[in-house]
Amino acid sequence: MLVMGVDAGGTSTRALLATAAGDGVGFGSGGSGNPTSSGIPIALAGVRGAISDALAHAGASLGDVAGIVIAMAGHDARGGVSDWILEPLKEDGFTGALTFESDLLAMYSSGAVAPVGYGVVCGTGASAVRVEGGRIVATADGLGWLVGDRGSGFWIGRAAAAAAVDELDGVGPATALTPAVLRAAGVLGEHSEGRGADGRPRALEQLVRALYGRRPVQLSEFAPLVFDAADAQDPVAARILTEAGEQLVRTFELVREEPGPVVAGGSIVSRSGPPQQLLRAHLAAVSEDQPFVLVDSGAVGATMLALRHAGIDVDEAMLARMRAGVPGRGAGSPGCTP
Amino acid sequence: MLVMGVDAGGTSTRALLATAAGDGVGFGSGGSGNPTSSGIPIALAGVRGAISDALAHAGASLGDVAGIVIAMAGHDARGGVSDWILEPLKEDGFTGALTFESDLLAMYSSGAVAPVGYGVVCGTGASAVRVEGGRIVATADGLGWLVGDRGSGFWIGRAAAAAAVDELDGVGPATALTPAVLRAAGVLGEHSEGRGADGRPRALEQLVRALYGRRPVQLSEFAPLVFDAADAQDPVAARILTEAGEQLVRTFELVREEPGPVVAGGSIVSRSGPPQQLLRAHLAAVSEDQPFVLVDSGAVGATMLALRHAGIDVDEAMLARMRAGVPGRGAGSPGCTP
Repeated sequence: MLVMGVDAGGTSTRALLATAAGDGVGFGSGGSGNPTSSGIPIALAGVRGAISDALAHAGASLGDVAGIVIAMAGHDARGGVSDWILEPLKEDGFTGALTFESDLLAMYSSGAVAPVGYGVVCGTGASAVRVEGGRIVATADGLGWLVGDRGSGFWIGRAAAAAAVDELDGVGPATALTPAVLRAAGVLGEHSEGRGADGRPRALEQLVRALYGRRPVQLSEFAPLVFDAADAQDPVAARILTEAGEQLVRTFELVREEPGPVVAGGSIVSRSGPPQQLLRAHLAAVSEDQPFVLVDSGAVGATMLALRHAGIDVDEAMLARMRAGVPGRGAGSPGCTP
Repeated sequence: MLVMGVDAGGTSTRALLATAAGDGVGFGSGGSGNPTSSGIPIALAGVRGAISDALAHAGASLGDVAGIVIAMAGHDARGGVSDWILEPLKEDGFTGALTFESDLLAMYSSGAVAPVGYGVVCGTGASAVRVEGGRIVATADGLGWLVGDRGSGFWIGRAAAAAAVDELDGVGPATALTPAVLRAAGVLGEHSEGRGADGRPRALEQLVRALYGRRPVQLSEFAPLVFDAADAQDPVAARILTEAGEQLVRTFELVREEPGPVVAGGSIVSRSGPPQQLLRAHLAAVSEDQPFVLVDSGAVGATMLALRHAGIDVDEAMLARMRAGVPGRGAGSPGCTP
C-alpha cells in the first residue's frame, strides 16, 4: 500500500509518496497549487505535476495509491469543493480517498508526532497554531499583510522600505538598508542623484514610485537585506529584526497553553537571526519541555497525515525516517535542527 | 481678460473662470483629471468637461481665456509633457498660456496670499508644505499609504479595520468600530455568526476576505466611522483619531520655520474632531501669528496663480471676493473657517 502527501503552496507544490511502513519512495514538485491565489487551471497543473513527478520517481501509478492528503491554506472553504482536483485524479486512475488538511497542521506534522504541540510559521506571512489530538484548536494571526502577519517577511520588508524612505526624506537615521533597498528596487545611477523641483531627493521619488509599482506582498523580497544589514551591525536593521521576533513571540503566546514541541517553518524563522533567537530563548524560558524543530515543507507532514487516515499508527521513528529520506532545499536549509 | 484655474484631482476636477479684477464668473466640474491615476482619455475628459462647464456658465469661449493654470499632484513630471491636454485645448480655440502647478501650492493659494505660509492636507493621504515666495520650498510626507500618509484617512481607516479584526480575534478590546466596520464591509447576517472549523469567528474570516477584496486605499472609507464612534465616546476610536492628529502635527513640524498662515484641506482635517483640534491647538501654542484657514478645493488657488502668471497683483481682498463667489461642497463644508 502507498499513500501520498501534497503540500500545495501559493508558490510551489511538493508531493511525497510513501509506503505503509513510512518509507519515502518518490518525491515530486510543481508550481503553485493554490486555486484561490492562482486560479484552478494553474493550481491543477501544479498539484498534478508534483503528483506525477513523485509517482514517476517510484515507478508507481495513481491506481497504487490508497490515500492522498492535500495540505493547503484556507482548506476549510475547499473541504466540500474538491471536484477541481478529485475528478482529474480519478481520470488519471485514482480510486483511493482524497482528504484536504490545513497547511499549518501538515507543517506541524512534518516536525512532530506528539498529539499536543505548536506550529509557528514566519515566511511572507506569520501565524501560530496549537494542535491537540491531531487537529488545530487555536490559531493566532495569519491575517495577511494589511491587518496582520506581524513580524513576517512582509512586515520586515515594509519596515526596510520605510527606513530607506525616512532616511532619504531626512526624517530617519542613516542605515545600510537605504542603499540596499534602492539597489533592490532598481533605483540607480545618475538620474537618481540630486534633488527634484520639490526639493526632495530624486532617489526618494523614484523609490516611492518603484514601491507602488509592486504588489504590496512583494515588499517581503527586501527581508533578506535586513538580515544582511543586521549581520553587518546596522542598528536600524537589528531593531527591525528584534521587533519582528518580539511580534512572533507575542503571536506564539496567544496560542500557548501546556508544553509541547514547537515546529517552525518559513524563510524568516528558518534563517539564523533575531526572530529565531528570540523565539528559541522564549521557549527555553517558559518551559524545559518545548523542543524546537525547523521544517522546510509540509510534504512530510501531509504524508504522515495520509498514513494516519489509512489507519496506520505513526511514531517518531517513522517521522525521522521519512524526514531523512526527503531531499532538502539546499545545504543551508537542514531538514531538522533539534 | 479672463483667466482660469483648474484643480485636477484623482476623483474630480473643478474649474473656475475669473476676470482680471478677481471676480469669479464661471464654475465647472468634471471627473478625474489625473492622467497618472486614471489614464489620459479619462483625465482629458475630466479636465475638458470642467473647463467647458465653467465657460458655458459665463457664456465665454476658450479664445477669451488668456491663461490657464492646471493644479495637479505630481505636476513636475508633467511639466514638459503637457501635450495630452494642450493640443486638445488648442483645438478648442485656446491661444493663451497653459501652466501646471502643484496641487498643494494651489490649495495654499486658495486660502492665503502671504508669500510665506504652510499647506496641510489630510484626506485620503496626508502631507504638509512650506511656501516661500509663491513656491513650495519644503514638503513632508505625502508618500502614500504603504510607506507614508501618516494620520491620513487611509491610516485611520486601516486602524479601524485592524481594531475590528483584533476584537473579533480576541486580542483587542471591544469597540463600537467592530459592528460599524463589519456593516460597512458587508459582513452581516446568519452566515457570519458562530465559529468556523479553525475555531475563529466566521465574521473574522469574512471581514478579512472583504478587506483584501478592496484596493488598499479604499480602507479610507472607514475613516468617517471612526469620527462617529469617537463622537459616541468610544475610547478605541478616540485614541485612533488622537494618534492621527499627533502624526499630522508631526508632519507639519517637519516643514515649519517662521510664522505664517496655515491653509488646511482634505476630509479628515476639515471635519471637526481630534485631528483638526490637535493641529489648531498646536498652532496656537507655537505662535500667535499662524492663522488657520480651511479650504475645500484648489480651484480658487489655481485661479489666483493664473492671475499672478498674467501679471496681476493679487491681494487678500481679491482672494476673499473670489472665495465668496465659489459654490461650496455643501452646508457642512464652509469655504472658510477663520
